[in-house]
Amino acid sequence: RIDGKRLWDSLMAMAEIGATPKGGVRRLTLTEVDKAGRERFRSWCEALGLAVRVDAIGNMFARREGRDPDRLPVLMGSHLDSQPSGGKFDGALGVIAGLEVMRSLNDLNIQTEAPIELVNWTDEEGSRFGHSLMGSGAWAGVYPLDKVYGLQDVDGVSVEQALTAIGYKGEAPAKPFPADAYFELHIEQGPILEQEGKRIGIVTGAQAQVWWDARILGQDAHAGTTPPSARKDALVCAARIIDLVDRMMRARGEDGRGTVGFLQVIPNSRNVVPGEVRFSVEFRHPDTAEIERLAAQFPREAGFIARDCGLPLELTELFRFPLQPFDAGCVDLVRQAAARLGLPAREIVSGAGHDAVYVARSVPTAMIFTPCKDGLSHNEAESIEPEEAEAGCQVLFEAVLARANR
Amino acid sequence: RIDGKRLWDSLMAMAEIGATPKGGVRRLTLTEVDKAGRERFRSWCEALGLAVRVDAIGNMFARREGRDPDRLPVLMGSHLDSQPSGGKFDGALGVIAGLEVMRSLNDLNIQTEAPIELVNWTDEEGSRFGHSLMGSGAWAGVYPLDKVYGLQDVDGVSVEQALTAIGYKGEAPAKPFPADAYFELHIEQGPILEQEGKRIGIVTGAQAQVWWDARILGQDAHAGTTPPSARKDALVCAARIIDLVDRMMRARGEDGRGTVGFLQVIPNSRNVVPGEVRFSVEFRHPDTAEIERLAAQFPREAGFIARDCGLPLELTELFRFPLQPFDAGCVDLVRQAAARLGLPAREIVSGAGHDAVYVARSVPTAMIFTPCKDGLSHNEAESIEPEEAEAGCQVLFEAVLARANR
Ligand SMILES: NC(=O)NCCC(=O)O
Ligand SMILES: NC(=O)NCCC(=O)O
Repeated sequence: RIDGKRLWDSLMAMAEIGATPKGGVRRLTLTEVDKAGRERFRSWCEALGLAVRVDAIGNMFARREGRDPDRLPVLMGSHLDSQPSGGKFDGALGVIAGLEVMRSLNDLNIQTEAPIELVNWTDEEGSRFGHSLMGSGAWAGVYPLDKVYGLQDVDGVSVEQALTAIGYKGEAPAKPFPADAYFELHIEQGPILEQEGKRIGIVTGAQAQVWWDARILGQDAHAGTTPPSARKDALVCAARIIDLVDRMMRARGEDGRGTVGFLQVIPNSRNVVPGEVRFSVEFRHPDTAEIERLAAQFPREAGFIARDCGLPLELTELFRFPLQPFDAGCVDLVRQAAARLGLPAREIVSGAGHDAVYVARSVPTAMIFTPCKDGLSHNEAESIEPEEAEAGCQVLFEAVLARANR
Repeated sequence: RIDGKRLWDSLMAMAEIGATPKGGVRRLTLTEVDKAGRERFRSWCEALGLAVRVDAIGNMFARREGRDPDRLPVLMGSHLDSQPSGGKFDGALGVIAGLEVMRSLNDLNIQTEAPIELVNWTDEEGSRFGHSLMGSGAWAGVYPLDKVYGLQDVDGVSVEQALTAIGYKGEAPAKPFPADAYFELHIEQGPILEQEGKRIGIVTGAQAQVWWDARILGQDAHAGTTPPSARKDALVCAARIIDLVDRMMRARGEDGRGTVGFLQVIPNSRNVVPGEVRFSVEFRHPDTAEIERLAAQFPREAGFIARDCGLPLELTELFRFPLQPFDAGCVDLVRQAAARLGLPAREIVSGAGHDAVYVARSVPTAMIFTPCKDGLSHNEAESIEPEEAEAGCQVLFEAVLARANR
């Protein structure tokens, strides 16, 4: 069995890096804080005798050799980057649990048939450069590497510059290599498991998504002298589109998701009619057809609003992906492990995006969810119990071991 | 006569300080850039033999003695601070024209009866600390000095810290001293003079205003997992209030002004339901009774929207002032000067707030407006012609001289 206390201690040690006063974490991708998290992770891996390699988009792979040189590796992992005001467990749980699996295999002197690799994917959150699942997406070939290198944060720093600055533009090519399976443990980030008293979510897939960058161009003008008829107020127009996103979400009932999470006003001065607004828009739904409808409807209806306001709206679709089902065989290994351990479990579709979504395009994949308090995530108050982490890690251990020794 | 070329050259020299690539100026109050503007202004004043004093809120007064030791000084001036992406003339015109008046008095060897003082008021724009007319408001006793010292910018820097940092927390008390009159030259910042082919606006007063700070508290949550019924989206609520401000403005016709110019989303990440939004709200109207109605109606209707959203709304009224009429005698001196010079002129009520509004509470006051291209201000493209600056400065010269020698 894995060591629950050691797992928790390492989770807490990782949570010190970028700790916020409110008990959360700010470890934005490819910053100095992210670098510090990566270095701690790397030193833990090297202490276990694992060989760590870094690919061209900064994804880190820590390898433990197997007995059979012809077997493809079994992958496990998640991400160490966080939201600007994120929690201690979103991502970190899957990476540190993978580390605990490696430590337990060493302790128990287990040599698996297949090699095992533990991955820390770069920029899963997407809050800095606008593409969630960026590292896994580049690795999977969904995002061309050149395009990803050119993405910029609000300060104009590109992904390539940020990778170079922290020394994590690695040598290994960022593209899929043959692998036998991928397992990712993650907190649910929603309320379902907790409400139903389940310890384990057997994740059968992840819902469909579409994301845009939006930009409205008006004209800066004096708030005191510019009459209503002469105003080109980009923020009033953006406000109506934000309301549209909310109405479109609610029209889909409780399965709908529609969010404007990021908004920037330029010049953002109290007595200046806003001349420019940039904001994000995203929709999600478990039914791919619904996302296709939303992806057609939103630009049309937002365009009507912008025309009514007399202002140009630029919409750039950043990415769109359908419902991603996971691999039946891998999902079954999760189900069996939970059953063997006597852990109450249920099947679940992920509301969040995960690196597993892109990895699943070329590698048989499954995910394991554990509950989190009040379903709260992307919030500094995100919280889980040590026994919940331990249970998830034990399921990960058994699923990976079963796959590597099959 | 004043020297139009010298005036223009000094305006352009001041515009170099904080110049932006798009031809505007970023000289935010009490920054290092503002300090550089102040030092250039001070050295120009000292070169003329004027004695410069600084008061406790950083207002600068450059004094030229008169013949009669019993006469009260005639004041003139405006402000050197700018919007974050402001123009070269908003404020600077009135200060540099005052400098040109002083230079011309020296050149012409004129000794006035009354002393003359040229003022650079601190933080007229209000974009950094939330109170427009801050320096003149503190001087006039409208804002208690302690309260003003404690105001903070978005980075948490207080007015007192900022004053100390640039060495402009002066010795002179920030309170009204006896003065005979105050004249302020400013660009109109609106389209009326240009549309009617007038060279001079004889400003009879400034319209009424009310400003608030608004804050909505929701809850950060994951955009992918949080169902519509569980969302506490502060930005959706703010969007509806922004739309309300626009509707309330338009209900007042072309005289209405209602603006949300500043808005900040926290944490401002694409896949996080916004947990907090802070924004500004202001209304203006030439009729004080209308501002009183708006000041009662807006908190009520915004409160209804917030209640509908299920989220708490905090509204802090920052200031409210009625229509401020200017002094009939001073206004008449402006009218006479324009007539004597054969400059087409009209009476006008200011849409913008000006330091003259607060100075007028204790000193007989008038303002002179000159046209600006397309009525555009609080915009880097703000533009005026050298002859327009010269005409305004000549009117200022004659009005000040007439008052000082009356
Ligand atoms: N797991 C997680 O929070 N991922 C961030 C990407 C997203 O779902 O928006
Ligand atoms: N003149 C000017 O632009 N003042 C700024 C204060 C305001 O009117 O909002």
